[in-house]
Amino acid sequence: MANIQVSIITIGDELLIGQTVDTNSAWMAQRLNDLGIEIKRIVSVGDIAKDIKNALDEEIAAADIVLLTGGLGPTADDITKPLLCKYFGGDMVVNEEVLNHVKHIFEVRKRPFLDRNLKQAEVPDTCQVLFNKLGTAPGMLFERNGKVIISLPGVPFEMMGIMEDEVIPYLQQNFISDALLHRSIVTAGEGESFIAERIADLETTLPLHVRLAYLPSAGIVRLRLTGRGADKQRLVKELEMYQDQISNRLENIVVSLHDLPLEHILGRTLLEKQKTIGFAESCTGGYIAHHITQVMGSANYFQGSVVCYQNEIKESLLGVKKETLDKHGAVSEQTVIEMANGARRSLKADIGLGVTGLLSPGGGEDHVPVGTVWIGVADENRTVTKEFRFHYDRPRNKDMATQIGMLMAWKFLEDKL
Amino acid sequence: MANIQVSIITIGDELLIGQTVDTNSAWMAQRLNDLGIEIKRIVSVGDIAKDIKNALDEEIAAADIVLLTGGLGPTADDITKPLLCKYFGGDMVVNEEVLNHVKHIFEVRKRPFLDRNLKQAEVPDTCQVLFNKLGTAPGMLFERNGKVIISLPGVPFEMMGIMEDEVIPYLQQNFISDALLHRSIVTAGEGESFIAERIADLETTLPLHVRLAYLPSAGIVRLRLTGRGADKQRLVKELEMYQDQISNRLENIVVSLHDLPLEHILGRTLLEKQKTIGFAESCTGGYIAHHITQVMGSANYFQGSVVCYQNEIKESLLGVKKETLDKHGAVSEQTVIEMANGARRSLKADIGLGVTGLLSPGGGEDHVPVGTVWIGVADENRTVTKEFRFHYDRPRNKDMATQIGMLMAWKFLEDKL
Repeated sequence: MANIQVSIITIGDELLIGQTVDTNSAWMAQRLNDLGIEIKRIVSVGDIAKDIKNALDEEIAAADIVLLTGGLGPTADDITKPLLCKYFGGDMVVNEEVLNHVKHIFEVRKRPFLDRNLKQAEVPDTCQVLFNKLGTAPGMLFERNGKVIISLPGVPFEMMGIMEDEVIPYLQQNFISDALLHRSIVTAGEGESFIAERIADLETTLPLHVRLAYLPSAGIVRLRLTGRGADKQRLVKELEMYQDQISNRLENIVVSLHDLPLEHILGRTLLEKQKTIGFAESCTGGYIAHHITQVMGSANYFQGSVVCYQNEIKESLLGVKKETLDKHGAVSEQTVIEMANGARRSLKADIGLGVTGLLSPGGGEDHVPVGTVWIGVADENRTVTKEFRFHYDRPRNKDMATQIGMLMAWKFLEDKL
Repeated sequence: MANIQVSIITIGDELLIGQTVDTNSAWMAQRLNDLGIEIKRIVSVGDIAKDIKNALDEEIAAADIVLLTGGLGPTADDITKPLLCKYFGGDMVVNEEVLNHVKHIFEVRKRPFLDRNLKQAEVPDTCQVLFNKLGTAPGMLFERNGKVIISLPGVPFEMMGIMEDEVIPYLQQNFISDALLHRSIVTAGEGESFIAERIADLETTLPLHVRLAYLPSAGIVRLRLTGRGADKQRLVKELEMYQDQISNRLENIVVSLHDLPLEHILGRTLLEKQKTIGFAESCTGGYIAHHITQVMGSANYFQGSVVCYQNEIKESLLGVKKETLDKHGAVSEQTVIEMANGARRSLKADIGLGVTGLLSPGGGEDHVPVGTVWIGVADENRTVTKEFRFHYDRPRNKDMATQIGMLMAWKFLEDKL
């Protein structure tokens, strides 16, 4: 079967009032793309029977497989399960395996099992039950006229568990599809338009089954080649040829040929070079440390971070001199030099990274323009500093400083700074 | 006009392969809800003309206003603007104001202005241009048979800028709608089903125009009352009456009647009580510090955090005793007591919060079950500790430890621990 297509329907009022960001569909899309399964549309609707039914009608017509998440919880705002039962013409029955599992979960969590929890073990008798190891709401799989409709809970880790344990093996067994492959080039230092201009001639030579996308984010532009074809081995070779051509052309701004977040790229380089790192974070407030510790095994190269939101902490824990702070201010080149070296010494690290800035108005540094950030990287022998001026709001300025801080540390290690 | 309804269409291949999480529609939904405008559906499609056109047809039929984001960048993967031009039957023309602005942006950013950037100043002559102060791609507003279609760039801060400057004033002027109001109750300590059981009788008394939703997240369940009505003042009173009834019933587990993240709730309490706080973060890796510094003005109560990913740093910067680490291990009650008090002293704070745990397998603490986290809070007079066992994956365990750490600090300050 060539190019099977999936629609995702996410259900919940919380999505439509913006209280919850839908991260489920991005995760599902990524996971299915790995299998060569393409997502055609993602639709979010509220907890309203009519809207859910309409979405089902439309997406079943348009796609081969429809995945639903949400609407399966125990409380009164959930209406999806009875709707699916009616839609596929069955009766609700208690599933013994699910019931035992739900009771077991309540026992382990030392919570009383209530009558309304019994509902969670009920499923339409027309569905195949997809067991939910991590929660109480089971997944359900329905078939109709060769199309498959799968309903999953909205809690992300429960949805992910059922996807991995049940849905993906099922899809692998029942659907074969063209390979869909991606190759990426991560760049830093030039904008989207400028990169497009530099590779315009290469882009025009791409065949129809290979597409190039530009994905800009804080300080970084990712180029993604997507190819589709029946012959996977040939497709790999083809994509890697285009990846080579483009990365050779952009050589001076290429950070990685692996589509990884910067914390992974920096972590790999630290491991390779057998160096440790420590941070002195003022305006980034621990966000760089958070990123680097998202990587499993980061304890092999990450010593720690001193989040110094007050000048007295910069002095006492990092050894920044009071005179430096008094004379030049907390947001200055002189201070960031002492912070980077202080991080290196206090945290017993080979490399120190310091970040100090003014992300939003206020904060006692009013002589410095809002958005000014100083970043410094140091080892035993040298210290490199750079000044930035970000023009966004506070969260985005923090994100920029975090990404560019990691980028500068990576460049320092690669002798590109 | 009663209950005008909006559909959102987000455009971009990156959404359908899961490379980008769609945060735009949640932001738009929240902002429009504040105005009493309801979102009916959110649809994501790829950069494929046919799919965009289908989505436009469907959503224009179903809603009064259709908002599009994405597909307006300068590179070859963007096809939305020509499609809209054709869809609404106009010609592309260069808009002088936009052209001057785009050229100005390139000057400021010291980037050469390329021919392909000229395209960004082109708009269909059938649209009203929505000026984009923060970027190069203008927004566009089309009207057809009393329906309004608005196209915005996909870069979040550019989309937000045009929404605030242009779209929201336009909607306020041209559409009046029933008030849509929310009141929340943030609780911690009991699961969704158990809460539902405790307030079952109250829930059945809610009138049709008031709905109650349960929104569980790490360690927290938010209850949200949503009411709709023509008389805003009456609706406020009505919602607050139900909010009172429910929060009185749940008194022992209520954290806040404001739907704020925990970092805001903790920050408010620190300000009120004029206390400062400092963290010693091992397994949370700076994530608690990141949260607390997301709040503007947090420098008034946040001293800093020592992210101590190595035992030697726990010793040198926090004064944790080598004997304690050797005897009890890094993930232990004894260590977290010394960490919390070390954070308090080293960071010169009134309150110290310490977190140490094993989030995922490995890390040299293999005698401790994976998911074990010790959290301690201390002031001059007392130290409170608690042990947790989280059963999720590494990022979710980190999030749980972060949320519950903030919750414990808040309870400590409120004498509820």
